[in-house]
Amino acid sequence: MVNSSAEAFAPATVANLGVGFDILGLALSEPGDVVRVEPLEQTGAHILDIQGDGGKLPRESHKNTACVAANSVLELLGSSHGVGIHLEKRLPLASGLGSSAASAVAAAVAVNALFGTPLSLIELLPACLDGEAAVSGYHADNVAPCLFGGITLSAGVSAEQIYPIPIPDRLHLSLVTPDVEVPTATARAVLPHSVTLRQMVAQTAAVARVMNALYRGDIEALGAAMEADGVVEPARAHLMPLLKEVRTAAKQNGAFGLVISGAGPTLLAVCDEEVTAQKIASAMQMVYNDAGIACIARHARVASSGARILHVTS
Amino acid sequence: MVNSSAEAFAPATVANLGVGFDILGLALSEPGDVVRVEPLEQTGAHILDIQGDGGKLPRESHKNTACVAANSVLELLGSSHGVGIHLEKRLPLASGLGSSAASAVAAAVAVNALFGTPLSLIELLPACLDGEAAVSGYHADNVAPCLFGGITLSAGVSAEQIYPIPIPDRLHLSLVTPDVEVPTATARAVLPHSVTLRQMVAQTAAVARVMNALYRGDIEALGAAMEADGVVEPARAHLMPLLKEVRTAAKQNGAFGLVISGAGPTLLAVCDEEVTAQKIASAMQMVYNDAGIACIARHARVASSGARILHVTS
Repeated sequence: MVNSSAEAFAPATVANLGVGFDILGLALSEPGDVVRVEPLEQTGAHILDIQGDGGKLPRESHKNTACVAANSVLELLGSSHGVGIHLEKRLPLASGLGSSAASAVAAAVAVNALFGTPLSLIELLPACLDGEAAVSGYHADNVAPCLFGGITLSAGVSAEQIYPIPIPDRLHLSLVTPDVEVPTATARAVLPHSVTLRQMVAQTAAVARVMNALYRGDIEALGAAMEADGVVEPARAHLMPLLKEVRTAAKQNGAFGLVISGAGPTLLAVCDEEVTAQKIASAMQMVYNDAGIACIARHARVASSGARILHVTS
Repeated sequence: MVNSSAEAFAPATVANLGVGFDILGLALSEPGDVVRVEPLEQTGAHILDIQGDGGKLPRESHKNTACVAANSVLELLGSSHGVGIHLEKRLPLASGLGSSAASAVAAAVAVNALFGTPLSLIELLPACLDGEAAVSGYHADNVAPCLFGGITLSAGVSAEQIYPIPIPDRLHLSLVTPDVEVPTATARAVLPHSVTLRQMVAQTAAVARVMNALYRGDIEALGAAMEADGVVEPARAHLMPLLKEVRTAAKQNGAFGLVISGAGPTLLAVCDEEVTAQKIASAMQMVYNDAGIACIARHARVASSGARILHVTS
């Protein structure tokens, strides 16, 4: 271990982009989780403290996503050193913004930095996936954009199955996170086990339209294609309070489409100007506030880079 | 009616491109069907003669794809004139090269030309789909590339749901059509009625990879992604004689992927050089010939334009 402390940031991410269930995702520039790590006498990775989680996250090494990822990095490095983790949760839990992926990725990047950054981001991928798997399955749809940034297609969990997709210049995002919890496990449980061949064809067509729109930078077509989801949103819609009303408000204010971010309850709207994104965020916030539901609304852009080292003390 | 005769060509097409079942397709420059039309005393469209079909195609107006398309164009034009059709089939029937679409499209374009070309290609689309529907369902996956050329994404059957996709510069094709018939109805009947959610996700991922590879012009990635079909090829493989052996031969000669063209039995291989495409075509032909199965093998490129008027006599 070459450093005495290292701190890393990993961003919030939006998985699925509507119809791209389990395969598409994007990174936001803010918010994100921050993990600081330091050497520990005891072997293995251990949580020293967590701030911002309201006491809800598990502290046990094998259950905490940051800790699992940190342990996997130690294993990758063949290190028998111990690492203490300070996790600063800036992402709301179970909100559809890739909270567990952000903690796992920030921890992996921080531990790597503690050792002088011997591993590349690509080499850290399996460790991040291990961390994510501790809470929500071995999926790359949040982890990939969190680690690498940008918009990613995750056709599998190995680095060569993850493809960066161009970020349209004019893509602006609005997000609203109502103060309701939708646990990922619940959101998965309501999904159908099978779909008709016709539904599959429609879903592949819509995903192809999303890809086409991203490459062409056509935000209007992108919004329409993201929404053309005949499988996942219909199954989950009832878990998302005021989905229909928020969609209407977003569109009345210039959104080209609105989808559930990840497993929800955060909703994501897309548009093509910053001022429009601000307006949409306000309009979405008002829908929840009028119904007496607290929420956080923000406008954002896709972050072209993902996790990063914030500080290293040698 | 302003002309006394009009002749049009419509190209062979490859639907599906493997994993893009019912949504992706491309046009070949050759071969194609040729339709010549002329005014007739009798109202409506009527087959006068068909060459090259071995007597297999129906001559009845409501069953013949060219005739149905021609009648739909007459209807679009609000014309009570009669039209006689000479159809020169250059495409093998039920071969997976879009034979019915080519006849329908050539007939529609020819009838339109007989009237002085009042309708655009886009306006002819519904008539071509009517023709295709007479034999193999109301699908645009062959009709769209046949009419417009290039590589198309058909997310539906209206013109605004059909998207042109870039043709990679280095894309070369090899095709082999063994002398066995696989009727589209049979090839459809063997498909599963439903797929698991996991299969759907894998299929959407593979289609997204195809789109990504087409936009990036990455032929190697394209071939791999086209083949990543966990639903349609597994169900149809047993209808395609020597599929595995032809795939092996194609790959040994430089193909990046081999898929069933449309509903088969034509097989399509992709590679990145003309000389390689020639070699692959020869190798595929040899596999069938060694097994005593006659076949036609060819190398080809994607045609950037589709149907065209050949001659008009005023």
